[in-house]
Amino acid sequence: MKNFKFDYRHVLMLAIPVALLAETFGWGLVVVFIAAAVGIIPLAGYIGEATEELTAYTGPKIGGLLNATLGNAAELIITIVAIKAGAVELVIASITGSILGNLLLVMGLSVLLGGLKNGKQKFDRSRATSYATMMILAMAALMIPAIFGDFIDINHHEALQPFSLGVAGVMIFIYGLGIYYSFTSSDEESPLTRPSAHDAHEPKWSVRTAVIVLIIATVAIVFMSEALVGSIEHVVTELGWSEFFVGIIIVPLVGNAAEHMVAVQVALKNRMTLSMEIALGSSLQIALFVAPLLVIIAAFMGVELAFSFNTFEQVSLASAGIVAVFIFQDGESNWMEGAQLLALYAILGVAFFFI
Amino acid sequence: MKNFKFDYRHVLMLAIPVALLAETFGWGLVVVFIAAAVGIIPLAGYIGEATEELTAYTGPKIGGLLNATLGNAAELIITIVAIKAGAVELVIASITGSILGNLLLVMGLSVLLGGLKNGKQKFDRSRATSYATMMILAMAALMIPAIFGDFIDINHHEALQPFSLGVAGVMIFIYGLGIYYSFTSSDEESPLTRPSAHDAHEPKWSVRTAVIVLIIATVAIVFMSEALVGSIEHVVTELGWSEFFVGIIIVPLVGNAAEHMVAVQVALKNRMTLSMEIALGSSLQIALFVAPLLVIIAAFMGVELAFSFNTFEQVSLASAGIVAVFIFQDGESNWMEGAQLLALYAILGVAFFFI
Amino acid sequence: MKNFKFDYRHVLMLAIPVALLAETFGWGLVVVFIAAAVGIIPLAGYIGEATEELTAYTGPKIGGLLNATLGNAAELIITIVAIKAGAVELVIASITGSILGNLLLVMGLSVLLGGLKNGKQKFDRSRATSYATMMILAMAALMIPAIFGDFIDINHHEALQPFSLGVAGVMIFIYGLGIYYSFTSSDEESPLTRPSAHDAHEPKWSVRTAVIVLIIATVAIVFMSEALVGSIEHVVTELGWSEFFVGIIIVPLVGNAAEHMVAVQVALKNRMTLSMEIALGSSLQIALFVAPLLVIIAAFMGVELAFSFNTFEQVSLASAGIVAVFIFQDGESNWMEGAQLLALYAILGVAFFFI
Repeated sequence: MKNFKFDYRHVLMLAIPVALLAETFGWGLVVVFIAAAVGIIPLAGYIGEATEELTAYTGPKIGGLLNATLGNAAELIITIVAIKAGAVELVIASITGSILGNLLLVMGLSVLLGGLKNGKQKFDRSRATSYATMMILAMAALMIPAIFGDFIDINHHEALQPFSLGVAGVMIFIYGLGIYYSFTSSDEESPLTRPSAHDAHEPKWSVRTAVIVLIIATVAIVFMSEALVGSIEHVVTELGWSEFFVGIIIVPLVGNAAEHMVAVQVALKNRMTLSMEIALGSSLQIALFVAPLLVIIAAFMGVELAFSFNTFEQVSLASAGIVAVFIFQDGESNWMEGAQLLALYAILGVAFFFI
Repeated sequence: MKNFKFDYRHVLMLAIPVALLAETFGWGLVVVFIAAAVGIIPLAGYIGEATEELTAYTGPKIGGLLNATLGNAAELIITIVAIKAGAVELVIASITGSILGNLLLVMGLSVLLGGLKNGKQKFDRSRATSYATMMILAMAALMIPAIFGDFIDINHHEALQPFSLGVAGVMIFIYGLGIYYSFTSSDEESPLTRPSAHDAHEPKWSVRTAVIVLIIATVAIVFMSEALVGSIEHVVTELGWSEFFVGIIIVPLVGNAAEHMVAVQVALKNRMTLSMEIALGSSLQIALFVAPLLVIIAAFMGVELAFSFNTFEQVSLASAGIVAVFIFQDGESNWMEGAQLLALYAILGVAFFFI
Repeated sequence: MKNFKFDYRHVLMLAIPVALLAETFGWGLVVVFIAAAVGIIPLAGYIGEATEELTAYTGPKIGGLLNATLGNAAELIITIVAIKAGAVELVIASITGSILGNLLLVMGLSVLLGGLKNGKQKFDRSRATSYATMMILAMAALMIPAIFGDFIDINHHEALQPFSLGVAGVMIFIYGLGIYYSFTSSDEESPLTRPSAHDAHEPKWSVRTAVIVLIIATVAIVFMSEALVGSIEHVVTELGWSEFFVGIIIVPLVGNAAEHMVAVQVALKNRMTLSMEIALGSSLQIALFVAPLLVIIAAFMGVELAFSFNTFEQVSLASAGIVAVFIFQDGESNWMEGAQLLALYAILGVAFFFI
């Protein structure tokens, strides 16, 4: 047992059998919800680790694409399960919450903790503004259907969903172009093909082990997501929380916790550019790839999912986007800025709780 | 015929007699509309060329002012004709569409095609931020009457139009100050006095020729505009397009096509700063000069024209303005950014179509 | 009398007895209003001067904190008196107007007059973007309760005021962190601990004199504020001005006039960084300290004061914030930019007048 390293995941994994047992023996849906939520966190962590292992066998570009894409795997699985259950508003809230969580919570924690440990931190200014521009464009595109939605529906009943499908197509096309750009341009990095968070390392796992871990973790997340989504309605009633709050704060936290921790750890190591790339890149991924993909998947599943962000979601996204852009733009950060980002996230969270 | 250079305008000019014949012999208003629209494009091109020729005889400052002002001549003529016809919403849509077209379509094409040909392109960052600031201020001023409009009308019935007149006065005063500034400051250039798109050249035309071409092209545009505006209502009904879509996408494209091509050609020659100056300068001109001038002209013609941008127009202008500012601010562009600008324009265009 | 220096305050102070006499002998409330308003201006000036004198005895950090905090003393007194009188909308309008006045009017005058006298002016770009980020974050936090307010009230009746109290607590916590940061970080300056506007100087007054001047001026401002607030309702009826206009334009001007003059004088001396720090710092102070403090004080006084900015106030704050940020971001200013800021302030002022 000399080489045994304590791993937070070993403890959290215990929640998985608890969730299954609670579901089977009827220990109450609040227990199911909490256990399923906790269980997803280490599973997403294993997906991240398996991806990192795989990238040791690929070139850096392909590896970066894998890192960026599978970073949102847990989030994608939860929302697909929610679509299957017809919980459309939960999906939209969760997309919004993922972007807010990355831009405010993760950036806030990274900047706060990184700043407290390392003092004023610098990051690549030119890259930051370039990503910020992509972010602003992606958010504008994402919100146009919602802003125009009510008016579109008046004149062309049920035109919002086909319009959202069209916008989804355009965004995935842009996403594909972005991947192509990052593979062909002389720039080494792009927020869509994120570098490894670890220093160059010998792989610990074989390709086969990594793929098996990926598959098992994915299947387990599917089960946990079904337990989670199936118990949400009950939890909302029993705990008196709003469904909106659960969708916009709790679900994204669960799905992204593992990735969030990586971004914060990297900031503590004073690699602020990479930390920013993880948070911004993940937001971009969700806006340009996950959200459109969900709209398209929903259409295939016969569920009407449109980019129907409500007013709070629109305001939160726009303000978080603008705030994040300004934080990034000056190319340096201090812990005060982190505290302010967290304060904004907290204020939004409380507002969502009251709605 | 050795010196004969093929010119796109020779072909497009054929649309002018078609428009007149179609109007006279009743070939259908859709034919009139299309022919008039096509006919305006080369005429605006001739105004641009005649202006360029004239600037060879003036100093660079006066030439720059001529270039900037006459660059929007076709747009101005079409909208005045629309005011005369009482098509107030068409005018407002067309002002919005011109700004959107410059910021998203033209910048998008310039950045995309310039980037594909020349790789990453740089432009004068300090100048770009200075213009962007002017742009943000101009758009804020432009939208205040619209945002406050509904509320103003409740308490002071019919106060919106006199208020718009007052704002128009302030904006033209600011425009005049801007011209004065660009003539007196040590800066060589300003977006309001745009430099020639051609390298220093010997004039091909005499002053007299240039003025005659200007006059003939202007008169011809008046006739084409009347045909265009007169047939819009019919086209809207027959083709099933919304009047809003025609006003915000088609009309500005027709009026600005010639200038748009110049901006793109300049970007292909890797002169990105000038390309940006044409697109941003033209937007500024419309916001600070053309729009206020139209409000004042309308008042003289007894038509009530206020800065009554609707919600879509406000949202589009604000998002295009912010997006453009971020594109400009990092001082460099790549084709991906161009593709994103075009995607945003396309999404907006489709949204306008559905409204 | 050789050393007698003419001081604008000696003349304006004459308004104080006029206000008291007018109140006592019933010369009409319009006279009371105008005299009280004029009387506050020199009193706020004396508070500023006494603070400057005190800072000669403290270290620069403590002095900076004093300067920043007491710079808004007059504003704070007027609004507390207004809370006591139950004029809640006046308080909110006055908070908005103070921020607008600092960002548009004071920056506009500083940039215009400084630019006319000194040509293109440069200021510390890195510091400007850092302050701008704080500003954007503070404004976002300030507006969230208002934006979410109507919806919060629907589900949780009367939840807006407790929610505002919570947000106020978070903001004062952030303000405290900001002070702590500026005292501990290696940066020499922060917008929350503003340096002296004067060059290092020997104190003219003893600490005792300075404190006595502070106390007398404060007490006198309390009396003037009561006269001012007590006569506003009458003035609104008699002059036909809207209460909103008085609250958002007149009251903040009166409370901040002395500080505004300092910022402009400093700009004339080509110390643009300090001028910006005064204007931005004062806005930040109001957003992060004065506004939350008022909400808390009101709660203790049993008055329901929430961050209930109306639509105009939200739009004005957001546009002024964004415009100011862009002005600051390029690190240089010219008189044209000043003229544009003033034009925006004028247009907003006229719009407020009509509402």
